[in-house]
Amino acid sequence: MAQKPSIPKGTRDFSPIEMARRNYIFDTIKKAFRLFGYKQIETPAMENLSTLMGKYGEEGDKLLFKILNSGDFLKGVSDEEIQEKNLPRLTNKLCEKGLRYDLTVPFARFVVQHRNELQLPFKRYQIQPVWRADRPQKGRYREFYQCDADVVGSESLNNEIELLSLIDEVFANLGINVTVKLNNRKILSGIAETIGEADRIVDITVAIDKIDKIGLENVNAELREKGLSEEAIKALEPLLTLSGCNEEKLEALSTLLAGSEIGKKGIEELKAVLDGINTLGHRCGVELDVSLARGLNYYTGTIIEVKARDVEIGSITGGGRYDNLTGVFGMPGLSGVGISFGADRIYDVMNQLDLYPESVNSSVDILFTNFGEKEALASMKYIKALHEAGISAELYPDTAKMKKQLGFADAENIPYVAMVGDSELAEGVIQFKDMKGGTQEKLTIEEIIKRLS
Amino acid sequence: MAQKPSIPKGTRDFSPIEMARRNYIFDTIKKAFRLFGYKQIETPAMENLSTLMGKYGEEGDKLLFKILNSGDFLKGVSDEEIQEKNLPRLTNKLCEKGLRYDLTVPFARFVVQHRNELQLPFKRYQIQPVWRADRPQKGRYREFYQCDADVVGSESLNNEIELLSLIDEVFANLGINVTVKLNNRKILSGIAETIGEADRIVDITVAIDKIDKIGLENVNAELREKGLSEEAIKALEPLLTLSGCNEEKLEALSTLLAGSEIGKKGIEELKAVLDGINTLGHRCGVELDVSLARGLNYYTGTIIEVKARDVEIGSITGGGRYDNLTGVFGMPGLSGVGISFGADRIYDVMNQLDLYPESVNSSVDILFTNFGEKEALASMKYIKALHEAGISAELYPDTAKMKKQLGFADAENIPYVAMVGDSELAEGVIQFKDMKGGTQEKLTIEEIIKRLS
Repeated sequence: MAQKPSIPKGTRDFSPIEMARRNYIFDTIKKAFRLFGYKQIETPAMENLSTLMGKYGEEGDKLLFKILNSGDFLKGVSDEEIQEKNLPRLTNKLCEKGLRYDLTVPFARFVVQHRNELQLPFKRYQIQPVWRADRPQKGRYREFYQCDADVVGSESLNNEIELLSLIDEVFANLGINVTVKLNNRKILSGIAETIGEADRIVDITVAIDKIDKIGLENVNAELREKGLSEEAIKALEPLLTLSGCNEEKLEALSTLLAGSEIGKKGIEELKAVLDGINTLGHRCGVELDVSLARGLNYYTGTIIEVKARDVEIGSITGGGRYDNLTGVFGMPGLSGVGISFGADRIYDVMNQLDLYPESVNSSVDILFTNFGEKEALASMKYIKALHEAGISAELYPDTAKMKKQLGFADAENIPYVAMVGDSELAEGVIQFKDMKGGTQEKLTIEEIIKRLS
Repeated sequence: MAQKPSIPKGTRDFSPIEMARRNYIFDTIKKAFRLFGYKQIETPAMENLSTLMGKYGEEGDKLLFKILNSGDFLKGVSDEEIQEKNLPRLTNKLCEKGLRYDLTVPFARFVVQHRNELQLPFKRYQIQPVWRADRPQKGRYREFYQCDADVVGSESLNNEIELLSLIDEVFANLGINVTVKLNNRKILSGIAETIGEADRIVDITVAIDKIDKIGLENVNAELREKGLSEEAIKALEPLLTLSGCNEEKLEALSTLLAGSEIGKKGIEELKAVLDGINTLGHRCGVELDVSLARGLNYYTGTIIEVKARDVEIGSITGGGRYDNLTGVFGMPGLSGVGISFGADRIYDVMNQLDLYPESVNSSVDILFTNFGEKEALASMKYIKALHEAGISAELYPDTAKMKKQLGFADAENIPYVAMVGDSELAEGVIQFKDMKGGTQEKLTIEEIIKRLS
């Protein structure tokens, strides 16, 4: 016998029950995307490497899965090039295409490529797998889904308010308690400017981003190590220890960043977004957090992060505003704002808290057992009537022992079983068994349809 | 400015309108799959090459997209091996993984790998893209979707009857007029046996499969070329020119194949399937066609093919019974039957005949125009109420000229526009514009919700 087959490490098969649960999550997110007017696009799994390379840093380039050129892949590769064994250069010769690494770069490429067909502002959503040659570990896969929604071509903060409402809608519908954290890159710039270290913004934000994990003392130690002056570190402290509600924090920031133009702009933007949220009402609540940085070199305005309150798992959704998504593809000046739902982490949270409705666990509403050819055909007619009423129904295809057929219904979590034997056929009725309640009664097909509709 | 970016040849981006249309097709197929009790699975895009190689013939091996190993892909490759330039051998060294080529082999691998977790009979559906390094041409892509439904672990012909009902359901719901052709591999074996050329079954079926295209004379010429005796060719003729309804054809076959055990078995199976269909009723009608062969070396019983009547495009769905899906992975004796909907061809047919409902063409039900900050915030409150009623609604995010905003609604095919200016705000009403009818009236939000629900 051949060896039991397997799949590449870091990838997953999804069984019917896993798919039902994942679909529940994706459908909830999709429904919200559509409700808010986001339109779906899809891009190919394979992109030209020229599109992907250099967009994710040196480390990202290494994590791209590259596709060996079809046909004679050694054509055009000289013996010297092979001997040299310069891997990046050789990769370039052997491979023209790679698998998409995220949905953001393909989206930017899409916008530029189709600019003449698009209406701006363009609100798109995209739910597709991405691939990364990362070392697989718990919760980190080489193939996983991203669910992104972005608006490009509008600088209005109304988009931020809308995205925060969308986040609220999704997590309220999924039943996950979340904390939504909000910041603005301009606040971070204002802080760096105010403490007299404007050019050290990256070091500063990388350090303060860790304050939740390592505490103020260790953040200060790291900043010292990076060469920040004691004066700057001291000036930073009140900014990192802001307390109270959002209004109180904004008040304090207004005073502390009064000397920074960019800082004041950040405060103004935050205020407008929070005002909008407060007017509309937000079930999960939005918390201003000036230590929130997330992909700093990418975001230019609003920064958003969502964490589950009841499970320790890191951020389950994140996003923000960027001012130059498409510049790298030759279309500068297009502002955008977007969020990305971490489907796989949301899936882990939902599983851990068992937040799925009961209906997700059963595949079909009713199973007809099979007593023989004649009875099966009669059952199929009943099944057809059920289908016409929109009720999912199936026949056990084989004439197996009743114990086996009922065991199948049980194992598959099918809520109802219908039995049509000789005498039922004569009477024109169906034995209708409630697998959970254990009750059994004789019903007509019309009565069953009524019961299950 | 950088060069306009592009995507690999043979791949496609899907715009919002294209996605809406594709989703309409996929959702219709999925709904039918679920109604009939098929359960969804997904498998990774990447499979080990050991799983894929040798399953699609020598040509298929060449058409697999292979993934360059991560890290030092030259590790373990000797200089001699490189110098030798034996491409298949070198590919084996450079690549461990490939992209899935169809959904059947991954399904077989899935069944064997998860055999202990599965209930048999196992009815699965799977809708995912596949990749082939084929030469791209009109209607042939390097990335395309397959939509497969299979039952494994049951030899009952009830499964065939069910799949034919499922086909009927899908095409009736899509509104495509189709012809469903039915045959049985055992009939083909019986024919070869009856004309005394049992070992030439492949040559015979390859030739007769073309009878629709090239006609009887040319089929006979081809058979002559392949070395079939004049006697055999003459004996074959009445089998190829069967006419009348299915019952008449079966009658004629019963006589013609009376001397072949396997032929008689095939007739019996076809009869049972057609009896089932006739009892249940079948809107599109099923036509017995003994020249239907389709992937002969794979199917062992029933063979199914669906063609669109109103568009010249080849088969849009096909399938059949196979007796040894999982044998190659060390699990012999598992019979299955399945069908595959050709989503991309169905998409072409739907586009050509314009069979989509009008609702597919609009992205959002209602757009609120934007007159300024205060009005926008009030509009967002209305939008929230619409969302709560399940009505999709969005705000034009920027305070642009009204002509531009209405032009946007028009270009996006948005059916209704709501306008909330200063006076509407004072009155507590909304200007509600029907973009198609051209009418405009003052309504309250409650009235709009009622109108659009």
